[in-house]
Amino acid sequence: MVVYGDIQSGNCFKVKLLLSLLDIEHEWRVVDVVAKETQTKEFLALSPKGKIPIVVLDDGKVLSESNAILGYFAEQSDLLPHDRFEKAKVYEWLFFEQYSHEPYIAVARFINKYLGMPREREAEYESLQAGGHSALAIMEKQLNETSFLVGSQLSIADLSLYAYTHVAHEGGFDLSQYPAVLGWIERIQTLPNYIGME
Amino acid sequence: MVVYGDIQSGNCFKVKLLLSLLDIEHEWRVVDVVAKETQTKEFLALSPKGKIPIVVLDDGKVLSESNAILGYFAEQSDLLPHDRFEKAKVYEWLFFEQYSHEPYIAVARFINKYLGMPREREAEYESLQAGGHSALAIMEKQLNETSFLVGSQLSIADLSLYAYTHVAHEGGFDLSQYPAVLGWIERIQTLPNYIGME
Ligand SMILES: N[C@@H](CCC(=O)N[C@@H](CS)C(=O)NCC(=O)O)C(=O)O
Ligand SMILES: N[C@@H](CCC(=O)N[C@@H](CS)C(=O)NCC(=O)O)C(=O)O
Repeated sequence: MVVYGDIQSGNCFKVKLLLSLLDIEHEWRVVDVVAKETQTKEFLALSPKGKIPIVVLDDGKVLSESNAILGYFAEQSDLLPHDRFEKAKVYEWLFFEQYSHEPYIAVARFINKYLGMPREREAEYESLQAGGHSALAIMEKQLNETSFLVGSQLSIADLSLYAYTHVAHEGGFDLSQYPAVLGWIERIQTLPNYIGME
Repeated sequence: MVVYGDIQSGNCFKVKLLLSLLDIEHEWRVVDVVAKETQTKEFLALSPKGKIPIVVLDDGKVLSESNAILGYFAEQSDLLPHDRFEKAKVYEWLFFEQYSHEPYIAVARFINKYLGMPREREAEYESLQAGGHSALAIMEKQLNETSFLVGSQLSIADLSLYAYTHVAHEGGFDLSQYPAVLGWIERIQTLPNYIGME
């Protein structure tokens, strides 16, 4: 099995973190987004969506979308609840991550960290701050009630949201306003088999 | 069971369409987004994310995120495959919808149809066209290979993508460039129990 990704990208890192926690063997092939390696003919033949991460399974089948990949590997593990409602709650957070969290926090971080904050994107960077803080406030509210995003059990919802949250400061977000989020980050970082972003 | 939504919103309509296809009884309560009814104290007490659709189940539990709601109701029906890889493929399309399709096509449609194309959002409207066409081209490629998005069987991937695709012209997208998409739209519209957007 081969995973194509860039460990500094939260979308890719979340897959790497899950594979490490579940101790699933894989080959990791580095893809450079800034050098447009996701837009080559070879890459587009694997995945016409032209984005990392992707996973090429041993039978050659390809899966894209980080959170769909998490769901695939977590199925039949404790990281995706079997209860129908709880499972739907996990997916609720995964969709929230892609719609209301990543487009603000990951993009602000990309502009700052990958692109070095070019002048022509400063206004966009500023405009992303409010949406990022809304997402963090919603997480804070939940994590004041439960120790993980869906109850008292770690799930792929936590791994997915963790990916860009723990580096949100690189997008200009001060997490000290979110003590419950900070406690949750610590709980994740002390999991057995935890790996960091490098 | 109560669903809060606006049938003109694709995110809400996809839930209504699924409930109709599966013949699941429910009460539908209309929420007016433009009048900010998702931001009232009452609504935020139900769902701090402040967005429709939401479903309040008979035991009072609340689910948000349109595609998580689809997954919840489709589980144990033919609209979500049991095979682990195929199921992940369905979720791949659901995440694609929220990340690479809805933010372009639904937002362009919102600016045009709901807001009446105010001058100060014209540039944004224009900037959304390329991303919408990329998403449609990816669907066209898949639908040239298979009659539904995941193989030859209808799934919630189709219902989710159908919601904003079949009204994409209201966001300025000319579908006549996408014959396979047009054929797929027709196949969906002739399903037993199909309902439209009004
Ligand atoms: N919704 C996708 C987003 C993936 C994504 O945007 N990947 C970025 C890197 S973080 C990428 O490949 N960008 C390159 C491109 O769009 O050409 C997911 O969750 O996997
Ligand atoms: N990711 C959410 C998006 C829902 C969404 O954006 N709903 C809009 C109407 S289509 C809404 O409630 N907007 C009101 C608001 O944001 O205050 C889903 O798929 O359910």
